[in-house]
Amino acid sequence: MAFDITRITEPTLLLDEARCRANMKRMADKARRLGLLLYPHFKTHQSRTVGKWCSEYGMSGIAVSSLDMATYFAGQGFDDITVAFPVNLRAADQLNRLAAKTGLSVLISGKDSIEKLDHVMYQPIRVFIEIDAGYGRCGVESGDEALIQHIIDICKSSRYLSFRGFYIHPGNSYHLHELSFKQQVHQNALDAMAMIKSKFDAPGREFRLGDTPNCTLMDEFGVCTSLGPGNYVFYDYMMAFYNNCSLEDISVCLAVPVVAVYPDRSEIVVHGGAVHLSKESLLNEQGQNSFGLVVELSNIGWSKPVEGAYVKKLSQEHGIIHASPELIESIKPGDLLGVLPVHSCLTADCMGGYLSLGGQVIDHCEG
Amino acid sequence: MAFDITRITEPTLLLDEARCRANMKRMADKARRLGLLLYPHFKTHQSRTVGKWCSEYGMSGIAVSSLDMATYFAGQGFDDITVAFPVNLRAADQLNRLAAKTGLSVLISGKDSIEKLDHVMYQPIRVFIEIDAGYGRCGVESGDEALIQHIIDICKSSRYLSFRGFYIHPGNSYHLHELSFKQQVHQNALDAMAMIKSKFDAPGREFRLGDTPNCTLMDEFGVCTSLGPGNYVFYDYMMAFYNNCSLEDISVCLAVPVVAVYPDRSEIVVHGGAVHLSKESLLNEQGQNSFGLVVELSNIGWSKPVEGAYVKKLSQEHGIIHASPELIESIKPGDLLGVLPVHSCLTADCMGGYLSLGGQVIDHCEG
Repeated sequence: MAFDITRITEPTLLLDEARCRANMKRMADKARRLGLLLYPHFKTHQSRTVGKWCSEYGMSGIAVSSLDMATYFAGQGFDDITVAFPVNLRAADQLNRLAAKTGLSVLISGKDSIEKLDHVMYQPIRVFIEIDAGYGRCGVESGDEALIQHIIDICKSSRYLSFRGFYIHPGNSYHLHELSFKQQVHQNALDAMAMIKSKFDAPGREFRLGDTPNCTLMDEFGVCTSLGPGNYVFYDYMMAFYNNCSLEDISVCLAVPVVAVYPDRSEIVVHGGAVHLSKESLLNEQGQNSFGLVVELSNIGWSKPVEGAYVKKLSQEHGIIHASPELIESIKPGDLLGVLPVHSCLTADCMGGYLSLGGQVIDHCEG
Repeated sequence: MAFDITRITEPTLLLDEARCRANMKRMADKARRLGLLLYPHFKTHQSRTVGKWCSEYGMSGIAVSSLDMATYFAGQGFDDITVAFPVNLRAADQLNRLAAKTGLSVLISGKDSIEKLDHVMYQPIRVFIEIDAGYGRCGVESGDEALIQHIIDICKSSRYLSFRGFYIHPGNSYHLHELSFKQQVHQNALDAMAMIKSKFDAPGREFRLGDTPNCTLMDEFGVCTSLGPGNYVFYDYMMAFYNNCSLEDISVCLAVPVVAVYPDRSEIVVHGGAVHLSKESLLNEQGQNSFGLVVELSNIGWSKPVEGAYVKKLSQEHGIIHASPELIESIKPGDLLGVLPVHSCLTADCMGGYLSLGGQVIDHCEG
């Protein structure tokens, strides 16, 4: 079935395959050029189809952020799966089932987990130490040599655990406008990895760095051996707002039916709310709290953002768009608009599927 | 299967049936006592099972906020369904299919929709006019008599449309602490409905009011003939924070596996992020941005909120809990904690299902 916007009757997440593939190709080419391995983080798209596109450009394995996602991808041609999340020790059965089926790696992010992991595993599993990038999410402090050595030692003496390497996700790069600040965050992560390598290097040991902003913008990755970005396949308004991509790189767009138009207050009400976009927002250049940019749709895709229009408010199912008189004039209930989401990973998770501009319904993990 | 928290291995939305039924009973009793009909809004739970509990306490019909939800409930013993959302004219086929199957009502929220609705319907459908409660979401202004008359006239002359009444949702009651401010919002809505009734009354005409805060707190509903609250079956942290319910009334709680503990920074990392709780937050009494309250879990349910603990940050799958030294001391990776969500409707939509404290897996619409 060819893509035909007249057939779209409800909030629908559109996926521009060409833009998405261009994003994939650019990152894969860069990794190859720099001699780095690429392990895309599939938490962004959570799709077997999109994952297969990714593999066409070359990658060495994948990362996910939950055991449900790992289960979704295992046995689907993805046989090196890192659950890039502090290991969930309550799910020992699922970990063992997965490890029996696919090459599985997990993250250790603190001192209490490694002995327990060793205790519950009866299938082979590889271990990354997550290094705290210094912004207060999780990880082992890069200077905590005793703990790092302890984890490595446990892996060494374990029957099922083997030590793979170090994983750092400088998530503090996501909300910075200035390139110099991103460079500083990046350099701190590289310095941490260099210090660790100087003390804990070994043949085949991996040093992976995971944030999309710096994987996109930087060309120097120090001692790192691999990249693990996720968001880059779709990008989103937040990534463009913080100068990590252009608006033209964004490859997903939520199509929303117009249900009411209020010229007096310059507002358009759409069916497209918090359950579709998520409540992620940002303060735009005008200091307005924005839940997305507004685009016009046609059978070939979406336009540039409409000047002055933005999603100003969301309730569960309603979206309120502030719009210029020109847009208001041209729109009526029953029309369709598009919204470039603030955070594509969350929007994709809310929507649970995509429609490509080729008319293909594309899967998303249900977990 | 009895409820056993040792079997919970992943983020799981717990539902306390006893609290939920008590909330349902209280609202149903109140409506009966005041001589008002009750049309619960099912967008909160989106569950056939929970809906059936609701019907045990007496109700006259239901409301939902999307055609997918209406489709989920149609033919399941719910035969008076109001899609309490500005009618989506792109979905004419789905509207007609639904109207052929169940008693269907929709909302008209502006001037352009009614002629089109008349044009596309070939099954009987009833029409509410949504009245703008004055907080900038949607609806017809209560003083716009010409438009109200126009909509009624179109229904009168239509083969398939019949006019049912007026619907007002004073959503501006949700973020007010002071009872006097809520009373003012409530009185404004009642005044609007009274003015409309004085001009557009007719036998059987319905005047419905829909916000949970005032349906919960007020005892005087003016000319209104029916109530349409939704959130009251679960309530949530936001409702308790704004003094619309007690913390003990909250009937859902997200169980979250603990994956890392950082005593030095008084933080616990859990598997429970934006894709589970939604990113709805509130500024708590201490001026902290909170994504939920923290409770302890046992096989009989959850405790009161733990003093001083709150969810301070969410990323896609991670939740960061700020906790007291006492809680930190007692918790380790592999344990389970609970989070009372800020906005239960969104959390339920993220989770797509429940586990009752009786061990029953409870459905949620997938749409």
